[in-house]
Amino acid sequence: MATRTMVLLPVLLSIVLLSVSTATTALTQDFCVADLLRGGDTPAGYICRPPATVTAADFYNGGLAKPGILIEPFNTSLASAFVKQYPALNGLGISASRVDILPGGVVPLHTHPAGTELLYVLEGTMKAGFISSNSNKVYTKVLSKGDLYLFPQGLLHFQYNTGDTTAVGFAAYSSPDPGLQILDSALFGNNLPTPDVVKGTFLAEAEVRKLKARFGGSG
Amino acid sequence: MATRTMVLLPVLLSIVLLSVSTATTALTQDFCVADLLRGGDTPAGYICRPPATVTAADFYNGGLAKPGILIEPFNTSLASAFVKQYPALNGLGISASRVDILPGGVVPLHTHPAGTELLYVLEGTMKAGFISSNSNKVYTKVLSKGDLYLFPQGLLHFQYNTGDTTAVGFAAYSSPDPGLQILDSALFGNNLPTPDVVKGTFLAEAEVRKLKARFGGSG
Amino acid sequence: MATRTMVLLPVLLSIVLLSVSTATTALTQDFCVADLLRGGDTPAGYICRPPATVTAADFYNGGLAKPGILIEPFNTSLASAFVKQYPALNGLGISASRVDILPGGVVPLHTHPAGTELLYVLEGTMKAGFISSNSNKVYTKVLSKGDLYLFPQGLLHFQYNTGDTTAVGFAAYSSPDPGLQILDSALFGNNLPTPDVVKGTFLAEAEVRKLKARFGGSG
Amino acid sequence: MATRTMVLLPVLLSIVLLSVSTATTALTQDFCVADLLRGGDTPAGYICRPPATVTAADFYNGGLAKPGILIEPFNTSLASAFVKQYPALNGLGISASRVDILPGGVVPLHTHPAGTELLYVLEGTMKAGFISSNSNKVYTKVLSKGDLYLFPQGLLHFQYNTGDTTAVGFAAYSSPDPGLQILDSALFGNNLPTPDVVKGTFLAEAEVRKLKARFGGSG
Amino acid sequence: MATRTMVLLPVLLSIVLLSVSTATTALTQDFCVADLLRGGDTPAGYICRPPATVTAADFYNGGLAKPGILIEPFNTSLASAFVKQYPALNGLGISASRVDILPGGVVPLHTHPAGTELLYVLEGTMKAGFISSNSNKVYTKVLSKGDLYLFPQGLLHFQYNTGDTTAVGFAAYSSPDPGLQILDSALFGNNLPTPDVVKGTFLAEAEVRKLKARFGGSG
Amino acid sequence: MATRTMVLLPVLLSIVLLSVSTATTALTQDFCVADLLRGGDTPAGYICRPPATVTAADFYNGGLAKPGILIEPFNTSLASAFVKQYPALNGLGISASRVDILPGGVVPLHTHPAGTELLYVLEGTMKAGFISSNSNKVYTKVLSKGDLYLFPQGLLHFQYNTGDTTAVGFAAYSSPDPGLQILDSALFGNNLPTPDVVKGTFLAEAEVRKLKARFGGSG
Repeated sequence: MATRTMVLLPVLLSIVLLSVSTATTALTQDFCVADLLRGGDTPAGYICRPPATVTAADFYNGGLAKPGILIEPFNTSLASAFVKQYPALNGLGISASRVDILPGGVVPLHTHPAGTELLYVLEGTMKAGFISSNSNKVYTKVLSKGDLYLFPQGLLHFQYNTGDTTAVGFAAYSSPDPGLQILDSALFGNNLPTPDVVKGTFLAEAEVRKLKARFGGSG
Repeated sequence: MATRTMVLLPVLLSIVLLSVSTATTALTQDFCVADLLRGGDTPAGYICRPPATVTAADFYNGGLAKPGILIEPFNTSLASAFVKQYPALNGLGISASRVDILPGGVVPLHTHPAGTELLYVLEGTMKAGFISSNSNKVYTKVLSKGDLYLFPQGLLHFQYNTGDTTAVGFAAYSSPDPGLQILDSALFGNNLPTPDVVKGTFLAEAEVRKLKARFGGSG
Repeated sequence: MATRTMVLLPVLLSIVLLSVSTATTALTQDFCVADLLRGGDTPAGYICRPPATVTAADFYNGGLAKPGILIEPFNTSLASAFVKQYPALNGLGISASRVDILPGGVVPLHTHPAGTELLYVLEGTMKAGFISSNSNKVYTKVLSKGDLYLFPQGLLHFQYNTGDTTAVGFAAYSSPDPGLQILDSALFGNNLPTPDVVKGTFLAEAEVRKLKARFGGSG
Repeated sequence: MATRTMVLLPVLLSIVLLSVSTATTALTQDFCVADLLRGGDTPAGYICRPPATVTAADFYNGGLAKPGILIEPFNTSLASAFVKQYPALNGLGISASRVDILPGGVVPLHTHPAGTELLYVLEGTMKAGFISSNSNKVYTKVLSKGDLYLFPQGLLHFQYNTGDTTAVGFAAYSSPDPGLQILDSALFGNNLPTPDVVKGTFLAEAEVRKLKARFGGSG
Repeated sequence: MATRTMVLLPVLLSIVLLSVSTATTALTQDFCVADLLRGGDTPAGYICRPPATVTAADFYNGGLAKPGILIEPFNTSLASAFVKQYPALNGLGISASRVDILPGGVVPLHTHPAGTELLYVLEGTMKAGFISSNSNKVYTKVLSKGDLYLFPQGLLHFQYNTGDTTAVGFAAYSSPDPGLQILDSALFGNNLPTPDVVKGTFLAEAEVRKLKARFGGSG
Repeated sequence: MATRTMVLLPVLLSIVLLSVSTATTALTQDFCVADLLRGGDTPAGYICRPPATVTAADFYNGGLAKPGILIEPFNTSLASAFVKQYPALNGLGISASRVDILPGGVVPLHTHPAGTELLYVLEGTMKAGFISSNSNKVYTKVLSKGDLYLFPQGLLHFQYNTGDTTAVGFAAYSSPDPGLQILDSALFGNNLPTPDVVKGTFLAEAEVRKLKARFGGSG
């Protein structure tokens, strides 16, 4: 009888495995949910949790259902679903975030060193733009609900609200951990000495000191 | 005077280039907008359009602002922003689509052979699930507005509307061209002979013939 | 005398290393034999065993010298030499398996989510085919001893014996762990509820229940 | 009626495409069969042939069904199914070859600069080995029919027949074009001046001249 | 006689090739020298020149033998050996440049969107630093002749001369075309409207206008 | 007041992280400095040290400031800055070495199995060359101070001093761990039996024994 002697493949593969190596783990690469507690990062992502401990809940993330925490100088809320907030993304080449830009608000000039951003406008209107490195050419566009815009990897870009209501954007990235380098934070939010900032930017010293005060920098 | 003799870097680079190779093109890899008309695909994507012909409009796509064309048996509309619809995605590792699932509708079992899908629910409720290849284990979850769910690359997955209103999803993919293999179309929508389908699936012949009729297949 | 003062390079490199970091390991990337017992998988493969413990035996695998275990409903034996059975493959982008298809037997419709398959026919004759995702077009061919056939990554494919003797195939894959998702097992061999299978495939409920009984599924 | 209004997805995608870009090509990345006549190689492989011109015959290759041409000094026949002989492999990360080593014959020391080799013994017995770069350690093993052995990418390796009958091996590679640098041909089969070979190898000049005569070199 | 019937492998491979496809090109992937005149860029690099036209001169570049053209506001000369100046680098994952920083000179804050930089100091002393995106932490060091320093991909970094003589650096990059986005040029050297720069940086409008005048911007 | 309520992004991200997973590590992929003591190598590189322990000193390496240890038979000194000597290179696709070739000295024939080499001549003159695998064609050139030359990945290459003074070269590689297989060491510096070397190279047995004596081999 076929059904009595039938051996399903996954069972078979386990048997073969045990006879070869007595391995106590049976990891898979269908997915590699990051083991953030164990703390092993590698150039290709985190060490995986054992698949047997992974459930459907790991593939779910509710962090973008509402606005993130407001960031004052920018009048914008940011919520991220990168690998550290959403460990199932580990190794899978994708992540997301949500920005809620209040009227007058801005997502200031920044780069994602490790990923391209694809922006989808959920509500409101915003101006979005990036600057090419090759030619310094500027590519800007005013976007409305339902529009997509693209920011190629590593290039300076920005968005700001052009309307009277909150503008909301959903952004997907081509990496589980695209990184985020905000220009103001990098220049004015650390202890890089003011003379070094002046030297590296040609900004006036007074301007640098004023913005260091605003963004929490020292030196 | 500094400003008089200043030479900007992009200009410089062009000069150096010309003296070395008299090249008439000055391509860049900030981006590589696909030249679909020229028709040169490669394993890494399409040949790029000359950057001088690229404008901000190329980075914009409005195709997901409203539902795509309704696909009848599924009661679902699909609109895609893959590289063929959105050439600026070429080489950048990301793309998107929008599904509008009517009440009772379904996105039937399918795979994306070349990409992971990250789904963001824009409206309504839907059940989503995928099946691991390693263990045949099923990972399903009912999702509401604002929820994210993840379908790892190449695995069979589905969604269906669990509510009384249209459920809308925005999906991002980890490839500019993730592919789409719908199980019903692959089995029943082509000229694969019925005996071969029976042989390869253990479905009853009558069932195969019935579904071939429904999905436009022959043989 | 040259031979007396000669210092061989590998020794040299170790000396330099020790003076810099007092590292107690001297790993190499000539190879990275998977440490399956330690159990650290990452998105790029397993953690390596210390090279000093690796011998020629690790690069050898005898598991494909004879047929694997018979899988009843398919009348086919499968033996795999993937990374879990052959840890030296880790990180090297290749693996293999052997199928022995009895007369009347089949390798039913399945995908390898993470690898392309290159099939070499060792004995007998078989019909092989795959279905493109782009166009649903079917590519089939009857193969004899010595023939090669190709199944691109992630696409549904199958083989069945067309002769009176056992057909044997050796398959190489473009990944140390290509995965294997057998359609019947994914649809009918787990606890995915019957209504969900019906919804996702448009198969008749009775057909689903019949095959769930055959392939060990529930729900 | 569902069947009357049903629109299949591939058709749909074409419609969407045409409305966006009037593209006359509808390329796919299910596969990218190399267009060798057009002659466009890139760092990722050749330009693809238009998918509409691709048939099942492209995925088939019969070149390894019998021994290749005999190479005299080695007493070994080699037949290759690399991308130039088997254009469907383009971009898919795999290829194959067949060696028939006559009694007394050898596959002399060589490297594959761009791929790992997985060897499967089809007939006879052979000794196989490679040399690690890190430690100069030698990994050798005598193999029989059905055995697998692994040669990691870029490392010097060899095989020779240890029996009285022809030994046959099927080799798979982790690249569609792994390359082949035979040590004797590189040192003695070109116009690299004898003094340079002596300088670079510490071989005696007479030995170099003798082997240059044997392998067709000059200088 | 062995030498009379000997067939060298490269000849053999050509014969096999011709019998299979009558291809008129016999390209290789030992290297892929960019065909800049033909102008075909792809996401993985340029289309290759036919190997038969490639000579030793293509692998040579003399452009870094002396300082490049002086860039005034920075008091620094830059010479680049990227793929456009050195087509043999195409597809090979590496490139280089040379900076000669006059006393008081600077390589101002910039990023390489597509590559890591490894700097080797040839002459003089310079302060070098980069800013992490994760924590805004600053990593700076004063370097002398013979020192190496590393700037990870995509992060803002700078160098300036700390001595009384010209400081010279040789930089290698992990890409044949790492890109170069100079902060001052991106912010102040194009037609990005002043209000947008103010909005995106929180700099004072007067400061922006002053620097736009200095770096050739408008708007 | 804006400055009072301002929340900087990095702080924000940590908060979000903690509320989701109570992770005690907050790793980043700005860089992944190799944790050589912990000893976890993977196919993509070593496990990272916790970023909080990383300082500017980790990005610095002084090992190429002067010649490395003299290797007698070659009359050449070699100093390497590969990932084991310079752990910050881990995962970043680049490394370097320095060779000081005394008059009469040579860098004998060798390969880097895992990387392309870009050579920059710092002092003196040298002849450099490599051999293509595809055609056995030789590409050589005499180089002087300031010249660049390229050795594509995995191909046999060499350099020797053509002048009366020490020739110094700085080499950059397209991998943090390119490997180094010196032909003489691989053939004559280990226990590969003399008959196997003879079989695999067609060298005379006496020549093999003579060079085994010189390079420390046995068997």
